[in-house]
Amino acid sequence: MRPKLELVSHPLCPYVQRAAIALAEKGVPFTRTSVDLAARPDWFTRLSPLGKVPLLIVDDEVLFESAVICDYLDETIAPRLHPEDPLARARHRAWIEYGSAILNAIGNFYNAAERAPARLALREKFARLEPELGEGPWFAGASFCMVDAAFGPIFRYFDVFDQIADFGILTGLPRLQAWRAALATRPSVRAAVGPDYRRDLHAFLRDRGFQ
Amino acid sequence: MRPKLELVSHPLCPYVQRAAIALAEKGVPFTRTSVDLAARPDWFTRLSPLGKVPLLIVDDEVLFESAVICDYLDETIAPRLHPEDPLARARHRAWIEYGSAILNAIGNFYNAAERAPARLALREKFARLEPELGEGPWFAGASFCMVDAAFGPIFRYFDVFDQIADFGILTGLPRLQAWRAALATRPSVRAAVGPDYRRDLHAFLRDRGFQ
Repeated sequence: MRPKLELVSHPLCPYVQRAAIALAEKGVPFTRTSVDLAARPDWFTRLSPLGKVPLLIVDDEVLFESAVICDYLDETIAPRLHPEDPLARARHRAWIEYGSAILNAIGNFYNAAERAPARLALREKFARLEPELGEGPWFAGASFCMVDAAFGPIFRYFDVFDQIADFGILTGLPRLQAWRAALATRPSVRAAVGPDYRRDLHAFLRDRGFQ
Repeated sequence: MRPKLELVSHPLCPYVQRAAIALAEKGVPFTRTSVDLAARPDWFTRLSPLGKVPLLIVDDEVLFESAVICDYLDETIAPRLHPEDPLARARHRAWIEYGSAILNAIGNFYNAAERAPARLALREKFARLEPELGEGPWFAGASFCMVDAAFGPIFRYFDVFDQIADFGILTGLPRLQAWRAALATRPSVRAAVGPDYRRDLHAFLRDRGFQ
């Protein structure tokens, strides 16, 4: 029997979205519970060793860390989103970690007192990724994979950044731009956030002086 | 034919040690190349997307990120260090990520302007782990596993911290203390650093005003 899956979430968290996208691609039912990270409830502090989302509750076992959750889902529920070949799979996992480094650079960008160097650092991270992409539409070609699940939430930030100003972070990186456009159409990526996502991210950024 | 393995290293890096321990447990030959992270050579910058060690060069393919490298080794070379059961394996991977959070807390401790709160934060991270341990000697009982490979390098810091002062970070945490003692005897853990490790770590800490 399939275990009961509960994804413990925050509406803006890009790491939660990775797991939500993987779950949607696999077509398994799950419930989603949102946590206010500004006032963490006791049950959440008890369950989350690092105080972070996502958690995946599998019947009564708790998994933490998005990469761990995505690998667990991929190892137990078809279809596979990671490559079958161990070396190719390792390279995909490494680029997902690279996606986490890009998320840190995005955080540095919207929190920066001086925007120009943070913008440059973020752009350089993307530029390094451009030659890793092929003809698309997805990271590894014709099949949607776990790297795509990690980058859907990354590019989603730019939907809101673009409404604020033209920062030119993806200018001159045509493969990344095409990838971003493809990810924006994928039903699993679209469904990974709620209808208020853009409004809430705008408010979140405004609170940090980013507007 | 087994691929040629080269581990790109730094003498003090705890993440490199995870991979070195996994390789030693599996008994496969590998070469080790040390990089001066204060003056990164061009070849290293070209190969390492995040500018970090370890890298594992597998014939002519480059893998980055220690968790990815350890999982790749575990999926391709016997004996397995992760559990066979996917849920148990996911929990092990999550506790390895928790080990990375402990390493960040160790860095905050030795870099802290105010040592007391950083000491408390580090101690709390360890205290959360204590009830996860059983009768030992290893994380999951009788078999040495990948979580052990991650925590050998963590406890090694305390060999040098203890020479500086009694910070009491592991006081009252008997299972962690027993685990630390067991890890210190494991040949793979001992062989993961060179003979100058303690001297070099002392110098590194002294440069940061930690003495």
